[in-house]
Amino acid sequence: MLPAYYSNYSRFLIAVDCIILGFRNKELHLLLTRRPVEPMKNEWSLMGGFMDEQESLNEAAEKILFRFTRQKNIYMEQVGAYGDLHRDTGDRVVSVAFFGLVKMEQFDTSLAKEYDATWVNINELPHMVFDHNKMVGDALRLLRYKVSTEPVIFNFFREKFTLPVLQELYEAIFQMPLDKRNFRKKLTTMDLLDKLEAKDKESSKRGAYYYTFNPDKYALFLKNGKRFSL
Amino acid sequence: MLPAYYSNYSRFLIAVDCIILGFRNKELHLLLTRRPVEPMKNEWSLMGGFMDEQESLNEAAEKILFRFTRQKNIYMEQVGAYGDLHRDTGDRVVSVAFFGLVKMEQFDTSLAKEYDATWVNINELPHMVFDHNKMVGDALRLLRYKVSTEPVIFNFFREKFTLPVLQELYEAIFQMPLDKRNFRKKLTTMDLLDKLEAKDKESSKRGAYYYTFNPDKYALFLKNGKRFSL
Repeated sequence: MLPAYYSNYSRFLIAVDCIILGFRNKELHLLLTRRPVEPMKNEWSLMGGFMDEQESLNEAAEKILFRFTRQKNIYMEQVGAYGDLHRDTGDRVVSVAFFGLVKMEQFDTSLAKEYDATWVNINELPHMVFDHNKMVGDALRLLRYKVSTEPVIFNFFREKFTLPVLQELYEAIFQMPLDKRNFRKKLTTMDLLDKLEAKDKESSKRGAYYYTFNPDKYALFLKNGKRFSL
Repeated sequence: MLPAYYSNYSRFLIAVDCIILGFRNKELHLLLTRRPVEPMKNEWSLMGGFMDEQESLNEAAEKILFRFTRQKNIYMEQVGAYGDLHRDTGDRVVSVAFFGLVKMEQFDTSLAKEYDATWVNINELPHMVFDHNKMVGDALRLLRYKVSTEPVIFNFFREKFTLPVLQELYEAIFQMPLDKRNFRKKLTTMDLLDKLEAKDKESSKRGAYYYTFNPDKYALFLKNGKRFSL
């Protein structure tokens, strides 16, 4: 029997809204949809849904991320809970926002049709429903912190990447150019990447070597008391 | 009339748990209580309560902070939402944690009696109910980030403070000694403090001048494109 203590309090709908981010053509992109229900039907919206009784908050977020991307083991972080009284004009809903980093090259375009999903350049975001623009702003701030202090950025790539593209991604996240020499020097000093034999020859004449992130090197790096910083 | 869309989903209890922090005798302290109800009655617990229908999440946190400290305009930050299935063994409860920075010298000790509240040294935390220890860990990580990048630390003081005590507070938060010369140099370079004529003569023979944080200087500092860093 549940303690009577709990029975006197109000209960609330809890939504999960996902800021699904991908990288393509030097630009960060956000997966948006048109809200399928009233109020504000057909307005731009984040990908979201309600939490069910038998799932944890993280499981609810994983459900939403999988539903709209069909990718598993997506790197995600909770951005925070949004609980203003009238944030959702349909009913009182507390929403918890998560960001997820998606391999855009692997994105199944048939999903775009099914869920009316569109990748929008982060620099050209439309006005979205409720407090979704604020959620995106908060998510980008958290993402900037995360990619500076942990090797999180590699989750945007399926496996390999070139250093010019890695720098472009950092520049897209920070919205400013980075000094190439300084960027390379930090990467070299941390020594967390493996250089492959293969080159990307499409982006430049000379070509750029592919790299992969090495988790074993990172484990040793941490064990030696070092801290990721980019 | 509410859209039918919303009516099909489960509703949840939402709690707010507050990590109330204060500084005294070179140590960070956390305000704890003994849980007044079953399950886990009389175990150590954060200060918490349920969100009511007519209040926002932030208002619920302000309510809890005021109830247990009687201080208004407490600086607070949301730490995050905790939604594991069985985190609260009494019922399904999603809890949103906040930290609040309290002026411990102003703390009304009669409250301690009323709510069975105790200030506990952050280095001697007991095992607490549910996931409260995890919440405190997350709050301290966020606090470290906040005090490094924004002039948040001054909220621990009623108004004035000496530089040795300010350094002690940073050291208590980061759990490590800081180089005095480097610390002073950063403070001097940012130039955000006003030196008062009065000295604290109790802590040392020579005495230490009191300082206050100057929000106008900080506004100008930001306007000039500078960033707080300590």
